[in-house]
Amino acid sequence: MKQLKTPLVVLNFKTYIEATGKNAVRLAEMCSDVSRDAGITIIAVPQPSDIRPVAETGIPVFAQHIDGASAGGSTGHVLAEAVRDAGAIGTLINHSERRLTLAEIDAAIQAARRTGIATIVCSNNIATTKAAAALKPDFVAIEPPELIGTGIPVSTADPGIVSGAVDAALGIDPDVPVLCGAGISKGEDMAAALKLGAEGVLLASGIVRAPDPKAALMDLVSGI
Amino acid sequence: MKQLKTPLVVLNFKTYIEATGKNAVRLAEMCSDVSRDAGITIIAVPQPSDIRPVAETGIPVFAQHIDGASAGGSTGHVLAEAVRDAGAIGTLINHSERRLTLAEIDAAIQAARRTGIATIVCSNNIATTKAAAALKPDFVAIEPPELIGTGIPVSTADPGIVSGAVDAALGIDPDVPVLCGAGISKGEDMAAALKLGAEGVLLASGIVRAPDPKAALMDLVSGI
Amino acid sequence: MKQLKTPLVVLNFKTYIEATGKNAVRLAEMCSDVSRDAGITIIAVPQPSDIRPVAETGIPVFAQHIDGASAGGSTGHVLAEAVRDAGAIGTLINHSERRLTLAEIDAAIQAARRTGIATIVCSNNIATTKAAAALKPDFVAIEPPELIGTGIPVSTADPGIVSGAVDAALGIDPDVPVLCGAGISKGEDMAAALKLGAEGVLLASGIVRAPDPKAALMDLVSGI
Amino acid sequence: MKQLKTPLVVLNFKTYIEATGKNAVRLAEMCSDVSRDAGITIIAVPQPSDIRPVAETGIPVFAQHIDGASAGGSTGHVLAEAVRDAGAIGTLINHSERRLTLAEIDAAIQAARRTGIATIVCSNNIATTKAAAALKPDFVAIEPPELIGTGIPVSTADPGIVSGAVDAALGIDPDVPVLCGAGISKGEDMAAALKLGAEGVLLASGIVRAPDPKAALMDLVSGI
Repeated sequence: MKQLKTPLVVLNFKTYIEATGKNAVRLAEMCSDVSRDAGITIIAVPQPSDIRPVAETGIPVFAQHIDGASAGGSTGHVLAEAVRDAGAIGTLINHSERRLTLAEIDAAIQAARRTGIATIVCSNNIATTKAAAALKPDFVAIEPPELIGTGIPVSTADPGIVSGAVDAALGIDPDVPVLCGAGISKGEDMAAALKLGAEGVLLASGIVRAPDPKAALMDLVSGI
Repeated sequence: MKQLKTPLVVLNFKTYIEATGKNAVRLAEMCSDVSRDAGITIIAVPQPSDIRPVAETGIPVFAQHIDGASAGGSTGHVLAEAVRDAGAIGTLINHSERRLTLAEIDAAIQAARRTGIATIVCSNNIATTKAAAALKPDFVAIEPPELIGTGIPVSTADPGIVSGAVDAALGIDPDVPVLCGAGISKGEDMAAALKLGAEGVLLASGIVRAPDPKAALMDLVSGI
Repeated sequence: MKQLKTPLVVLNFKTYIEATGKNAVRLAEMCSDVSRDAGITIIAVPQPSDIRPVAETGIPVFAQHIDGASAGGSTGHVLAEAVRDAGAIGTLINHSERRLTLAEIDAAIQAARRTGIATIVCSNNIATTKAAAALKPDFVAIEPPELIGTGIPVSTADPGIVSGAVDAALGIDPDVPVLCGAGISKGEDMAAALKLGAEGVLLASGIVRAPDPKAALMDLVSGI
Repeated sequence: MKQLKTPLVVLNFKTYIEATGKNAVRLAEMCSDVSRDAGITIIAVPQPSDIRPVAETGIPVFAQHIDGASAGGSTGHVLAEAVRDAGAIGTLINHSERRLTLAEIDAAIQAARRTGIATIVCSNNIATTKAAAALKPDFVAIEPPELIGTGIPVSTADPGIVSGAVDAALGIDPDVPVLCGAGISKGEDMAAALKLGAEGVLLASGIVRAPDPKAALMDLVSGI
């Protein structure tokens, strides 16, 4: 992860049709443009079947999920080696829409390390941020579930949870930076997040479904 | 599915390293060669991140799994539209290594229909074959879990379960053909399966991990 | 199940505090009274830790869930033998709040048969009602998830799904009667359900959380 | 938990028929006898439907599992309030046979705190022991899955994992004591565990399935 300059903007494509297939490539190209112009690291997080063409646009790509499963009899699971070979340099783990058991989170982090890809473990509150930090991922991303997809930005609606998560992770392991997500879409949300100690943001619908995603993304990065 | 000529050979790439990334493409090309030479339909079932390059070889591709999730907030899930756009013309559902709830199986079949891709629902015994057939997928594939990966072919070790599944599906819906799997790798296993009323086979390690996969696949299709 | 006279009123205590511990016993005693006075079979479905004292009231008791797990290393799972020994004579399986994989539903039905307890498999639509009926449980209970807990009775709001489920189950196996649930609480909902071919109802909050549960239950059974 | 004198012997009844229903009560009475004679705290961990009669024997009882679910619409889940009312004074959480997501473990701990019952969170290695300790349960119990049910005692076969877990938990929170389990059955295993810094053991088949469970339990506590 040393090569990823913080602050990070991590754009989760989720399963939005606006971010699937050809749309995923188009969205990635737009992210590339904004990233270059603004000098900010933007990471695209497409569905697994879109990792390859999105990675070909040159943008850094993370998978949305990997399983800790080792190679072999794991039909329908996502192997770290497979997403790495397709071009991913990292992965989300334990997103609120794809929760894993504690043992699976640990196994997924180990699988990512084994294949040399970076990890962002998602958490839902301060206690689980601590637990996630104890597993030594590259980042923890806190997203209060009640704010996801609401458009109410966590960094202004609940600043205490962001700074609390930053302090909590620091108390467990000073080398685990914290991202924050949920409701983030504007430059002021981004600025507030960084001020609270976050080293980046995780976002989705606020950009993917914006009437003008490029303008929305440019507004976002203006907050840095 | 009208365009898929039975009997079918469905080759599940699982998460074998021998069937991931470049190896997946190489394996698919080999399948294409055998399919053309033998005039037999062979379907490749790679991991989602490999669907695109495998489909570009021209072989028919199925996904290993889709979720019933509709588009949107389903991070880490597999959208029918996404695998279709990547080139899949069908999907396994409820493989023994990726079991789904009954409601999810039904939702996944509906998602597949909505996007025009074919479905093979996996079952583990005669009772669940009936239940699967009642959902009207394009195929049911029975695989007794205790034989998967053993090299003991279901079609000769437990012929009653294959013919029983064929009869059971027929009793529920005469339009739902049955495939069988578990331990299948040789021409004689294939021949036995067809004789028992199966319209094809689902297999994996017997080919993928064979010392000479092409020879193994040629032996298999010789049983038709 | 021969001893259970239809129509059935199946009262799911869920995890309501009003139906936990001493409250569960009190609610069961009230159900017993109404059952005796009205001559209608009312089944209590308490949490597993309350099966024993609720069964001691003399009311027929079903568990909310069993696992298909056989005896032994299944910590935290619910064994058919354990709930039977505690006094349950049957169990719900695959309730919408506790969905199981298809293989687990089948295993749970087998475990129930092995121990001589009755089964009600829950389904969410007509397709899954067919699939559930194919597994030959004692009853299928259809509950459209979008109506659960709304107070909008399925039997009047969506009569087609009830009669459709009855016909669908009949088409698969004429010996599998259908119950219906979701939003049921009044005598007229009950009457409508029976008129549509259901052989009983599955209900919860409409009685458990009623200001006067006894009056609510008496109103319900007046619809028979 | 202040009332529970360490070292603890935590006996998981699992779903063994030898520890279900009347057998559970008999086993608990035997535990009570040994506990009284030896002056050692022995905790019984029966299935939920057996909590009530087992608690009536006077032995301290823990549940095998609780869900974080709050009261209401959680059919088939295990409510902290329900097991507390039945007589449990604590609960296992995240046993290797009943893994939970990280968010669920946290929610279950919160539910236990809310109802005043104690928590033992199970972990499978040193990393997940740290994560579990970060959630501040009353105890963490490390059980390497590969040794569970083997009869090979973790405390002598892999002493480093026990002392490593003790140190790891201490590094996160000095107030979270560590238990160890897997393969424990003899006094020497117990003695080895305590010497490595564990404050007790979690065990099951070594006692439950012993030809003479009482003799086995007496041998075990002789190691203290």
